[in-house]
Amino acid sequence: VRVDNLYLKVINLNFLILYLMDTDMLTVVMIGTGNVATHLTGALLNAGVQVLMIYSRTASHARVAGQKWAVPATSEWTDLPGNANVYVYAVSDNALPELLARELAPQAIHIHTAGSVGLDVFGDYKPKHGVLYPLQTFSKSKSLNFKDVPLFVEASSPEIHQVLKSLALLLSEKVYRVNSEQRCQLHLAAVFACNFVNHFYAIADELIRESNLPFDVLKPLIAETASKIDVLTPKEAQTGPAVRGDTSVMDKHIRLLENYPELKDMYEIMSKSIAEPGLS
Amino acid sequence: VRVDNLYLKVINLNFLILYLMDTDMLTVVMIGTGNVATHLTGALLNAGVQVLMIYSRTASHARVAGQKWAVPATSEWTDLPGNANVYVYAVSDNALPELLARELAPQAIHIHTAGSVGLDVFGDYKPKHGVLYPLQTFSKSKSLNFKDVPLFVEASSPEIHQVLKSLALLLSEKVYRVNSEQRCQLHLAAVFACNFVNHFYAIADELIRESNLPFDVLKPLIAETASKIDVLTPKEAQTGPAVRGDTSVMDKHIRLLENYPELKDMYEIMSKSIAEPGLS
Repeated sequence: VRVDNLYLKVINLNFLILYLMDTDMLTVVMIGTGNVATHLTGALLNAGVQVLMIYSRTASHARVAGQKWAVPATSEWTDLPGNANVYVYAVSDNALPELLARELAPQAIHIHTAGSVGLDVFGDYKPKHGVLYPLQTFSKSKSLNFKDVPLFVEASSPEIHQVLKSLALLLSEKVYRVNSEQRCQLHLAAVFACNFVNHFYAIADELIRESNLPFDVLKPLIAETASKIDVLTPKEAQTGPAVRGDTSVMDKHIRLLENYPELKDMYEIMSKSIAEPGLS
Repeated sequence: VRVDNLYLKVINLNFLILYLMDTDMLTVVMIGTGNVATHLTGALLNAGVQVLMIYSRTASHARVAGQKWAVPATSEWTDLPGNANVYVYAVSDNALPELLARELAPQAIHIHTAGSVGLDVFGDYKPKHGVLYPLQTFSKSKSLNFKDVPLFVEASSPEIHQVLKSLALLLSEKVYRVNSEQRCQLHLAAVFACNFVNHFYAIADELIRESNLPFDVLKPLIAETASKIDVLTPKEAQTGPAVRGDTSVMDKHIRLLENYPELKDMYEIMSKSIAEPGLS
């Protein structure tokens, strides 16, 4: 498997090199120093891609990122080199339009990494463009294996798609082609499966500390809940009072939440939805 | 480690034997054949405990469980032997009071496995009683390592507590003593951390299938979300539009949920709660 992957890497890198023509090495400029930018920069460097420069509008962020990766970094837009093959914008959705409107390498490939921003954000300033959306939750202080991160690619043309697909395959073993609509729906599903899930971990953390027990006692349950869906559908995996219709337990729990109206609302809406599954 | 565990097992089994006096082997009757009963029966047999009989009010359930474990099984209450040391009631909360009111071995130890039912459910019929609450999500068709399941013990007296603690240590490496109030709070936290979490997996499953993509693409995200809390607190681990205050993404997502008022409500209540954390 290792040899195969290496072979695949070489093939893809050659493909990129052949396509790009005017360079003998794939070069990237990374715009952004947040969670996604940090993990993506690490994955690019790990795959042998040359990161020419990192940009952040905040000088201290640029400095920290540059030191972390031993890559030149700047907070001055005009410092950015114009000769990179690919410019990656891993920034907040709100910051994207303004950054894309700035003058920078109009003939290069420009890509963003956002789940819910369409291709139209590139306007006419950057004719060669696309998206590389990593479906994962990234925190700077938590490392992970980028090879397992599903990457969703969209591009302004079949040619650019080939380039981005090849680039994506250097980084991950799971590369998919989607359109903007699918990507937005993916992002929405991810918010439920990750951000909202994690918020329930945070609520459980607060609830359990009220009973003077450590959050650690919940960890085997959390791990098993995530692990069950490898062998069962989430619907099959469901347990607990709501799916059993155990009203006496639910009534007790709701009484415990009497002083937390927000949690009481959540408990009621979630229990009702579990009891009557289906999107409606 | 293996030798130590074996030693601990022998010590505990000896303790039980010494305490129980009137038998040279710990014997259990299992009342129930649901998810908890199934996993607990397996763990008891695996620990060398003799399960004398399994009871279900449904004859076919009793038959299936009896065949699975090669243990006598019945749906006739009067068949149950009166000479077991411990009677385990792993049944729904609603069924407990009626079953505990039935005539059966008044001098034996009777325990239930429910999260949100106090000791008072035993009334005066069974003076030696307690609770062994496993904090885990059990499905019959998903195996797991019972040694990792946190077990929460409560008992009618210090003597019975010692017996139940010893029994629990035969089954799991994680045994805690709690009172009924703490156990109910634990159960409530578990509903958030497991049942509600799993329901978000189910919703994400439905959302992602609407975009013609398989649920599998979400699995690395789900695994990483659960894995992150081993190194970060849930609050530190949070990512996504709500914690970033990215209103443009949230507005897009809410528009996608226009036809699903229940999911729209969930999206709004969860996002608001993520943005303003803390129980209130």
